Amino acid sequence: MRISVVKNVLDANDRIAGENRSLFDGKGIYVINLMSSPGAGKTTLVEETIEALKGKYRIGVIEGDIQDTCDADRIAKLDIPVVQINTGGGCHLDGNMVREALTSLDLDAMDLLIVENVGNLVCPAEFKIGENVKIMILSTPEGADKPAKYPLMFQEASVMIINKMDLMPYVSFDLGKARKDALALNPQLKIIEVSCRTKEGLDIWIGWLQERIEAYRKSAPSPAGP
Amino acid sequence: MRISVVKNVLDANDRIAGENRSLFDGKGIYVINLMSSPGAGKTTLVEETIEALKGKYRIGVIEGDIQDTCDADRIAKLDIPVVQINTGGGCHLDGNMVREALTSLDLDAMDLLIVENVGNLVCPAEFKIGENVKIMILSTPEGADKPAKYPLMFQEASVMIINKMDLMPYVSFDLGKARKDALALNPQLKIIEVSCRTKEGLDIWIGWLQERIEAYRKSAPSPAGP
Repeated sequence: MRISVVKNVLDANDRIAGENRSLFDGKGIYVINLMSSPGAGKTTLVEETIEALKGKYRIGVIEGDIQDTCDADRIAKLDIPVVQINTGGGCHLDGNMVREALTSLDLDAMDLLIVENVGNLVCPAEFKIGENVKIMILSTPEGADKPAKYPLMFQEASVMIINKMDLMPYVSFDLGKARKDALALNPQLKIIEVSCRTKEGLDIWIGWLQERIEAYRKSAPSPAGP
Repeated sequence: MRISVVKNVLDANDRIAGENRSLFDGKGIYVINLMSSPGAGKTTLVEETIEALKGKYRIGVIEGDIQDTCDADRIAKLDIPVVQINTGGGCHLDGNMVREALTSLDLDAMDLLIVENVGNLVCPAEFKIGENVKIMILSTPEGADKPAKYPLMFQEASVMIINKMDLMPYVSFDLGKARKDALALNPQLKIIEVSCRTKEGLDIWIGWLQERIEAYRKSAPSPAGP
């Protein structure tokens, strides 16, 4: 009985996520679902991505947090439209929460939507929101045992960004093990090593993202014309 | 309707957690529920606590992970009875999982039970397991905005251990803000700064824990005699 209930919840979520996806395709919006443990560097990566791409694409951001608006406040300072979802205790975003947030954004003036999920390496991986791609961050202080212990996140993501590479001299992070274990779970996983602090490696992330956005714009159903 | 279902789940869990608590009191076992984000240092703190106290108390450990036994393997090397709970996707331990795990431990030969929860700063805070005390770890690379963003964990814990103090020169962690925001949520919170790597501050944690165990042993219903 219990399994059946969970399945229904996920089915219902998939349906709403699919509706979000159709809406995004109608407008030609590429959507990222960004996930990680608390404090791995999601908001900093969003800030860096905005700085790199704001001249090229019209960007919007949805911030997911249990409460508080401190991440959204950081994004608003960059003059980017941002909506805060406060889950009020909820441990992940779902399709419906994102759908509600979309009503506060001008989707006709957006090419790229970045959704920063609640900081949690477990639950967000289960819930689609209508994204084109799931991106996850693993930060070096967390340790290299995380793929083995939290497999779904690594299986669902298209990209694993290994952040805080600048801390490598001070932490015991086995980069080879992290890469190997993550690729064993997900052989297609793209792995990019960065330091948001020193900016090392960010060009590779930005290059990857731009390539994907351009490929989407070529292949997606054209947005409604003027 | 939805709120009512959640309430029933939590009520049922409270009942089972209460039964666990009665069992522990009958045996005179002090129980810690240890929680944090992934990679904050829970297992290392458990190892250090065992090293410091294994001559004084008979210790047992329950390891909670989604899958894998790497943490339990580390504890087993210290010659301490350990049971692994694999939640198979579940994001937290609950009273029933712990009750099941207890059948694999000799509770008549135990003074202190350390339960290491699934790495997650959100969901574990909602579920009692029959513990005497909830202990949480915040590590400096996670950032000082965590109390504001994940309030329940900081409200539920009796102790916040700030770990990885050795990384302070290399990360932007506002210790004053973390302390202030955590105490605003929970004025009784005991805050202990440690580095499991350099051992700095661990004596304060061990001293606090020993005091609590001794107070419990004086006040608790006596264990059943031989």
